[in-house]
Amino acid sequence: MEISQRAMNMPSSPIRKLARYADAAKRNGIHVYHLNIGQPDIQTPQCALDAVRSMDRTILEYSPSQGHISLRTKMVSYYAHYGIDLSPDEIIVTSGGSEAVMFAYMACLNPGDEIIVTDPSYANYMAFAISCGAVVKSVRTSIEDGFRLPPIEKFEEQITPRTKAILICNPNNPTGYLYTRKEMRQIRDLVAKYNLYLFSDEVYREFIYTKQPYISAFHLEGIDDNVILIDSVSKRYSECGIRIGALITRNKEVRKAVMKFCQARLSPPLIGQIIAEASLDTPQSYMDDVYEEYLQRRNFLIDGLNKIPGVYSPTPMGAFYTMVRLPVDDAEKFCMWCLTDFSYEGQTVMMAPGAGFYSHPEDGRNEVRMAYVLKRDDLAKALVVLQKALEAYQAL
Amino acid sequence: MEISQRAMNMPSSPIRKLARYADAAKRNGIHVYHLNIGQPDIQTPQCALDAVRSMDRTILEYSPSQGHISLRTKMVSYYAHYGIDLSPDEIIVTSGGSEAVMFAYMACLNPGDEIIVTDPSYANYMAFAISCGAVVKSVRTSIEDGFRLPPIEKFEEQITPRTKAILICNPNNPTGYLYTRKEMRQIRDLVAKYNLYLFSDEVYREFIYTKQPYISAFHLEGIDDNVILIDSVSKRYSECGIRIGALITRNKEVRKAVMKFCQARLSPPLIGQIIAEASLDTPQSYMDDVYEEYLQRRNFLIDGLNKIPGVYSPTPMGAFYTMVRLPVDDAEKFCMWCLTDFSYEGQTVMMAPGAGFYSHPEDGRNEVRMAYVLKRDDLAKALVVLQKALEAYQAL
Repeated sequence: MEISQRAMNMPSSPIRKLARYADAAKRNGIHVYHLNIGQPDIQTPQCALDAVRSMDRTILEYSPSQGHISLRTKMVSYYAHYGIDLSPDEIIVTSGGSEAVMFAYMACLNPGDEIIVTDPSYANYMAFAISCGAVVKSVRTSIEDGFRLPPIEKFEEQITPRTKAILICNPNNPTGYLYTRKEMRQIRDLVAKYNLYLFSDEVYREFIYTKQPYISAFHLEGIDDNVILIDSVSKRYSECGIRIGALITRNKEVRKAVMKFCQARLSPPLIGQIIAEASLDTPQSYMDDVYEEYLQRRNFLIDGLNKIPGVYSPTPMGAFYTMVRLPVDDAEKFCMWCLTDFSYEGQTVMMAPGAGFYSHPEDGRNEVRMAYVLKRDDLAKALVVLQKALEAYQAL
Repeated sequence: MEISQRAMNMPSSPIRKLARYADAAKRNGIHVYHLNIGQPDIQTPQCALDAVRSMDRTILEYSPSQGHISLRTKMVSYYAHYGIDLSPDEIIVTSGGSEAVMFAYMACLNPGDEIIVTDPSYANYMAFAISCGAVVKSVRTSIEDGFRLPPIEKFEEQITPRTKAILICNPNNPTGYLYTRKEMRQIRDLVAKYNLYLFSDEVYREFIYTKQPYISAFHLEGIDDNVILIDSVSKRYSECGIRIGALITRNKEVRKAVMKFCQARLSPPLIGQIIAEASLDTPQSYMDDVYEEYLQRRNFLIDGLNKIPGVYSPTPMGAFYTMVRLPVDDAEKFCMWCLTDFSYEGQTVMMAPGAGFYSHPEDGRNEVRMAYVLKRDDLAKALVVLQKALEAYQAL
């Protein structure tokens, strides 16, 4: 009896290792500021919570494998606001954006097929690729360039006969980068030239802090059948736990293929769908408040970080993450040390080591990812703690 | 751009094809008795529904990838009642039993590895195997023998150097068969001899209608590290829609591997876990009533079926399905015809064609699977409709 090769290849998240030490710190009475995870402290919209409490079903039965038609119909109106014209048939409800990524891979990629991803990127894109036997090729972006796309030729260099797809996350987790119209057009041209799939994860579209427009993959012309949009209500409505996402594509053959995997897992979560449907009625004032809150948090955190000697963060344009360069050789060691050997006035910080977001082990060694999902008061305290930790670490 | 080979290999469920015709029949005002799917019409326990309505969380956040510790702790007491001694660490909460099967395969099987399954079996065991590139070898059981296990040598014949696991479903979907102590011991001996994994799907353990004892894979001695139990609260508490299942194993390496896949998909459904936890407080009187209800339905349906000329069903010992032999050449055609060309007093029946549960295309051609998840009055009407349909079909 052995574990599968794919399980052995799956990365063990460095955050999981750190989490044990964070738990230990907490047991020792130390307050840990969690900058490491995109779990907002924002309240879920009242209409979503009310939908749970007023649920009058008496049999919590299977829902359709594609998701409730009432939810999919309402999602059509949501996307229309963003200039994305869909029909309910083109939307497949999934168990979070995670399942949407997994099903996109499963439906489109054979073992050994390659997808091109920008580096750094969300670590689970890689984990799902390993699950499916697909190979991730990466195009490096860097903190010095504010994580903007490198010349499109860098993508083209990675293309081989096994290349099946380009995956983008826009606005980006972990960098906060927002793709420009020019960059999106270059990606479109490449996708069209090599007839690739374009997997586009756009779960953070509500969180764009510049005047620059949001360009969805669906706004690109001439690649209708290539685009597979990955979406999720998790961040938008601060309801990560309900596990409702979507895979959206105009490509009928892909939908047919994805539906086979959907049918095998029977249905997406029933109560989650009820909540997601109600969430689509969230008043604009809630969205505005949340937006303003994240904008303030971003400004506050980035300003504060760049005031700490040796620390540098570009200004993220969207989402609620930023990659931060620290004046340390090995950020993973430093993150660990913050949890095991340091506290300041009974507090410490937990950050996600940057290397976990890069595909080459030498990259991002002195970077961390921070999520600005905490209240400004907490961010302020976390910044003080971080500065004190760096001072103490450098004095070691 | 092409669809993956694995997607092409995934079976299109014949029920999905039939479902379209059932919808058309309904639009024409015909009442369809759904004998085709295991969606109970039993009310979810009140304590489960109350847990939803009284939920006082205001942030619907991620839950731990392994599932809430409070739920896992309570599950330990549940299993203790069945003589299965577990710790919360050994339980991994999944999105339904489906995800548990998928993760068991992903963690234990390489592409090309083989698992041995009895035939007929739950069609999605095959679908998940295709998803993972695993190969299903089957050991035939037959309606004539009441679907009892064939001599254990038939299993041994299927074992090759690529064989990694035996998968059983006990009590069985689709046959209702309950494995005897002797059979379970033979399986244990085989698992031990060849050091195989034993994937044991036991989601129907509450529904056993004979005096014969329930033998869990965990009751078998000497194969502690081999057993991976698949479980789900779906059928037990009539809450299929909440998508809460579990993968349970004492094998630490397997748990570590499975947890990597769990972490990639972040977390199981939050509200589902709250409901599942509350469901574990369901009073025994509810369980007794539901049991009695299914027992009556089973007796009523099987009696009624065997009174129809040419129809034969063995008496299922557990679960709430039975495989039924019909006096037709091609049950799939007949099932289709019932939906497209037949009605009796404005009613018809939908059944699951038997062939979909067998791996060889010639097997089960004159069989259907029926679920006795409808009220007895409805079952009575469905039986009348079925008899009339068979008479009309034979007279064509």
